Amino acid sequence: MGKKKAVLLLSGGIDSSTCGAIATALGFEVYAISFNYGQRHVIELEAAEKVVKFLGIKEHKYIKSDLSAIGGSALTDNNIEVPDFKEGKNSIPSTYVPSRNIIFLSYAVSYAEVIGAGDIFTGVTAVDYSGYPDCRPDFIKTFNNAVNLGTKRGIGGKPFKIHTPLIELSKKDIIIKGINLGFDYGLTHSCYNPDINGIVCGKCDSCILRKKGFEEAGVDDPALKI
Amino acid sequence: MGKKKAVLLLSGGIDSSTCGAIATALGFEVYAISFNYGQRHVIELEAAEKVVKFLGIKEHKYIKSDLSAIGGSALTDNNIEVPDFKEGKNSIPSTYVPSRNIIFLSYAVSYAEVIGAGDIFTGVTAVDYSGYPDCRPDFIKTFNNAVNLGTKRGIGGKPFKIHTPLIELSKKDIIIKGINLGFDYGLTHSCYNPDINGIVCGKCDSCILRKKGFEEAGVDDPALKI
Repeated sequence: MGKKKAVLLLSGGIDSSTCGAIATALGFEVYAISFNYGQRHVIELEAAEKVVKFLGIKEHKYIKSDLSAIGGSALTDNNIEVPDFKEGKNSIPSTYVPSRNIIFLSYAVSYAEVIGAGDIFTGVTAVDYSGYPDCRPDFIKTFNNAVNLGTKRGIGGKPFKIHTPLIELSKKDIIIKGINLGFDYGLTHSCYNPDINGIVCGKCDSCILRKKGFEEAGVDDPALKI
Repeated sequence: MGKKKAVLLLSGGIDSSTCGAIATALGFEVYAISFNYGQRHVIELEAAEKVVKFLGIKEHKYIKSDLSAIGGSALTDNNIEVPDFKEGKNSIPSTYVPSRNIIFLSYAVSYAEVIGAGDIFTGVTAVDYSGYPDCRPDFIKTFNNAVNLGTKRGIGGKPFKIHTPLIELSKKDIIIKGINLGFDYGLTHSCYNPDINGIVCGKCDSCILRKKGFEEAGVDDPALKI
């Protein structure tokens, strides 16, 4: 019998890439899915491709889907500025893309159903994150129930399992986990607002959380090496 | 105070169009969302546009999203034939597009969140339908719970309500309801497998259910008028 198939939501950032390293280490045959949704930081897709090669991922599916047509987020709407990092998690920042993870997870389920995979990996984390509601455990659990009620596979007695191996981990612990698995973070990209040459801004949520994670883990960020 | 906003999932077929007529009659300001997902019957989008004009819908958003890249359905994969209608609902037909409604509903939620609408209308029906699991009441209910846990609006105490006014209606009753609301079914398109000129096949699930619905309602199908 071959390996069990799993679908990985892969952005090319630290979290989803670590999640891929975990799925691979668990022995899954991994199928990655990435999205070109009109994000400012479309350069992350180049990072995703490098991660796919590094991890030996079986297939990489790109979905082009114009969330920018819907708008409403600093990540997809050029009229809304990407804010600098702010301490505290009580408000949802303007980089929140309405329902982004819900849409991405739905595609992952569709892809999983077509290739016959019952396992879906997503690198959402409820610890060092930007305060997005679609990264919370109770959302993931209820969404998982919904897809098991609303898919051929689910109602056919072969439920999907949405794995969130990072959900309780800090950025520091995620990085340590990845390094212990031999993953190379030099391949990843995090900044929400890179310049035209892909140089990171160093000020957005994503840059600051990455910097803090590497500092706390006590290692240099290999993506910043000269 | 202005009208309450609602998002309508609109394919241009009988069910979603009737749903639009209902939302309009209920006094909502309706924002429609339609999908070009690589379906064979992309002609339905022309019908959607006619319905939008007829109902006076406020805005019509098109989402281009390549579900055909994922494949797995006769509706999006030219290598899978559209089957003729078969009586009985115990099996899910090859026209099932894995997670299609889950994906579409996710976009509708995203759109609703951006425009500040709390109400979403979908014409799913669990009666005269093709046996798609993502049209079932328990799926819709659980998915509705998931989006209220996974969106800024939902966790902010303004839950979304997914309306399924047709879910318990037969095709006959849907048609009678629409006619009573003054809707013109001559604008709609149903066939999964039209020819290059948009002429319906008369044999697929969708054609047969439409034909049966009009017969049982005791009215001629205005889309078939010479």
